[in-house]
Parts: sequence; C-alpha cells; structure tokens
Amino acid sequence: MITTRDAFLGGRLQILQPRDGYRAATDPVFLAAACPAQPGERVLELGCGVGTAALCLAARVGGLRLVGVERQEAYADLARKNAEAAGVTMEVVTADLTALPPALRQLSFDHVLANPPYFTAGDGTGAQDAGREAANRAETPLSDWIGVARARLKPQGWLTLIHLAERLPDCLSLLCDGFGAVTVLPIQPRPGRAANRVLIRARKGAKTPFRLLPPLLVHDAASHPGDHPDFTATAEAVLRQAAPIPFDLSIPGI
Amino acid sequence: MITTRDAFLGGRLQILQPRDGYRAATDPVFLAAACPAQPGERVLELGCGVGTAALCLAARVGGLRLVGVERQEAYADLARKNAEAAGVTMEVVTADLTALPPALRQLSFDHVLANPPYFTAGDGTGAQDAGREAANRAETPLSDWIGVARARLKPQGWLTLIHLAERLPDCLSLLCDGFGAVTVLPIQPRPGRAANRVLIRARKGAKTPFRLLPPLLVHDAASHPGDHPDFTATAEAVLRQAAPIPFDLSIPGI
Repeated sequence: MITTRDAFLGGRLQILQPRDGYRAATDPVFLAAACPAQPGERVLELGCGVGTAALCLAARVGGLRLVGVERQEAYADLARKNAEAAGVTMEVVTADLTALPPALRQLSFDHVLANPPYFTAGDGTGAQDAGREAANRAETPLSDWIGVARARLKPQGWLTLIHLAERLPDCLSLLCDGFGAVTVLPIQPRPGRAANRVLIRARKGAKTPFRLLPPLLVHDAASHPGDHPDFTATAEAVLRQAAPIPFDLSIPGI
Repeated sequence: MITTRDAFLGGRLQILQPRDGYRAATDPVFLAAACPAQPGERVLELGCGVGTAALCLAARVGGLRLVGVERQEAYADLARKNAEAAGVTMEVVTADLTALPPALRQLSFDHVLANPPYFTAGDGTGAQDAGREAANRAETPLSDWIGVARARLKPQGWLTLIHLAERLPDCLSLLCDGFGAVTVLPIQPRPGRAANRVLIRARKGAKTPFRLLPPLLVHDAASHPGDHPDFTATAEAVLRQAAPIPFDLSIPGI
C-alpha cells in the first residue's frame, strides 16, 4: 500500500494515510474541534481510520486517555504509527465496533467521537479502492454506531458526530433514545449554499432541549476563486491553529 | 373581548386581534413567506387563529383558494372579518383539526400551512388569558397536526410549518412518515445566537433528501440598540414588503 504523509493543523500534525484509500481532509479536523474534552478525560473514537480526529483532539487537549477502534487492520496500523510520530499515547484496537473486545466493553468514556460512513452499502457505484469503499460505505448501520457510543459513554458523557447534512433526521431520530442536550452546528461550504455537513453533540442521559446553532462558514467566496485557499477566519483557526468550535451559544427568549 | 387593529406587511394588511389573547407577530409572516404557493392553488391553514399567515400569503400570491381551520370561535370570527377587510375570499371553518367536517375531509390541497402551539399542555404556568392559553399550548399533539396535513394534501403537495427550534427533532421524526424533500430554514434572531424558530417545508410522497439551509438572520445587531427596529434587509423585505423566503439553494458536491 502506497502512503502519503499529509500535514494537518498548520503542520502541527503529520498523518500517514493510504494514497488511494479513504483520505482524511477537513471532516476529522472539524470533528475534533467540536469535542469538549478536558485534559485527563477518556476519549473513544469509533471508526478512527488512520487516527486523524483523535490526534487532532490530542493536539489541542493534553493528557487525554485515547482509544481508537478501527475495523481495517491497514488503517489501524497507520493510526498506531501516526500516534507514535505525534508523541501521543493512543490505544488502537482492530475490531468491528459491533464486536468490541471484552476488555474494551468494560471501559466507559467521557467522550465518544465518530465520523460514520456517509453512504449506505449498495448505493451507486463502488469506489475503485476496497479500503475507501469500506470506509465510505456503511455495512454497519448508523443505529449501531450510536448504540455502541451510548453503551460506552459514562452517564452525562458526550457524543460528538460529524455526518452528511442530509442524514441529520436519521441522527436526531437515533439520538432521541438515551441522549439529550442535542446540539447541531451546520457546516456551510460557502455563502448562500445549503449545509453539506452537520456537527452534532449529544449528552448521554441529559434532559436539556435541542439547539440549532448558526452555521460554520468554511469559505468566504461564493465560488472558488482559483487555486489559493479562501477559508473564513473561523475555518482557518480550526483547520490551521487547532481552535475549538464553540457550542455554548445561548438561545434568546422565545 | 377587546381587539386591536395591527398593521402587517408594511401596512398592506390590517389584522384585528384580541388585545389580551394570542397575538400574531413575526411568526405567521415568516410562515407565509416560506410557502411556495402559486396563483390559483388550494391552501389550507390548520389553526389559522385570526388569519394572519393565510392573509399574508394572499397579499403576495393572487387567486388562491384559501381555507382556514380554527377551533376557537372568537378567533375564527376575527379571521372572517380580517379576510373581508383585506378583500380576500377565505373560508374559515370553526373546528378542531382532528374532527374536520366531512365536506372539508373530501377536499385535498396543494399546500398546508401550520404554526402549531409551541408549548405542551401542562408545561409551566398557564397564561392569564384562556384564548392565549389555548393558542399557545398543545392539547392536540404535533403528530395530529402533521397527520391531518398529510391527509389533506394532494400527492406532491407541500406542508409549510413554523415551530420552536427546539422542536425540530420531533418535527423531523414525524415528517419521516409520508413526506420527503424536507428542508429546514433556521430563523436566527441575532448574530452569534442559536436559532429560536425553524421554518420547515416538506413534500408529500417526495423522495428528495433532507436539506438544511443557512439561517435567516432577523436582526443585525448583537443586542437590541434601543427602540428603533434593526431588522436585516432580508427580514425587512419579508416583514414589510411581503417578499418570499427562497428555499431553492443548492447543496454543493459532498
């Protein structure tokens, strides 16, 4: 397998990933930025791939106890190498998330992170690369991702998800069961466009009402002006300086 | 009952409403602006109150065949008077939406509009005014509102709703059954605040994926500068000039 080494967080993090497989871009960075982990907490990433989200989080928050679960051994191996190169202690378990090893099933976590596959198995045509195919297409239904997250979270623990905006109804429906304080932050690629991703935070056992935050706008220009990046200041801070994405906006009186 | 006469749409529409009861403000105007009705189409408003949303819609789109259903006779009477004063033909039926008269149950509509009660019966303390109490609090569950809308819509007909942002998960969950092309437009009161309302459009029997649009920002300033209004240009156009709210934004490639 041919790998590339790619810079994230303005060069603070180097990630080895398959040249032709599933390739991390901005989504895992946004996911990490939305996780409210505090130093010393336990964090589980489901479907961690080469570890990009967990390692972005570790670059912002020190002293985390990180566990990643990845079904594909080649990706799990790269995640271990990426963690070592970043000087981060991260246990990477090669397992299907619906068949976690008993030792992991005895742990509970303050946070679970997940960037589930965006497409359903059988949709459209297959990717050319088997690894990308497996990373992109859900053989494991979304209900299992959210159910395993719920099972592994402590009471009042936080689940942080990124998914396609068009899957928001499915996510919200599944989060009705056992989660509260559900908060959605749309990711809007450009002015005047619909959201293409949603960041979702939910707290196990909480009763706080749902909130819908203003979108994070990724690019300033209505269309791409050429080869140079045109990130908004907010996106730039998240993607290049590992800034967190604030979820603590208030709802004014109705 | 003491009534007041209030101007909507920059004075194009005068609405008589109870001084002390449920009082229409911006919500029914936004609701009307989100409805994609075309001249000549049949429109049903469930829980029409004094008719504000339906009459705002009629001010923008000519030749509609309008029917309103309102359970409270005093509000239904005012709706009839308001329609007459506006020169709009609107049939106002005094009925509970779960017990529509047989003649109405034989009609089907191109559009249904609804601004369901924002609070659940039994929440908090009661309003001082019985009419406002009945208009604000749901004795009829949201599932009945959406179920009656579905029953009265033609195939491919549009439901347009406004509700509290915190009720979005409930709305989406109910719309899974028989609707598609569900599109959410958050209403954000000020910069840096969570949405307080959501406008939702859904099409009966459609298969088009869910979309989440950028918010409509109501006020420019982060806090209210004083007594003078500070509506954004978009909100001003909707509230004062009866402009429609566009829902036709595209989703860029994922």
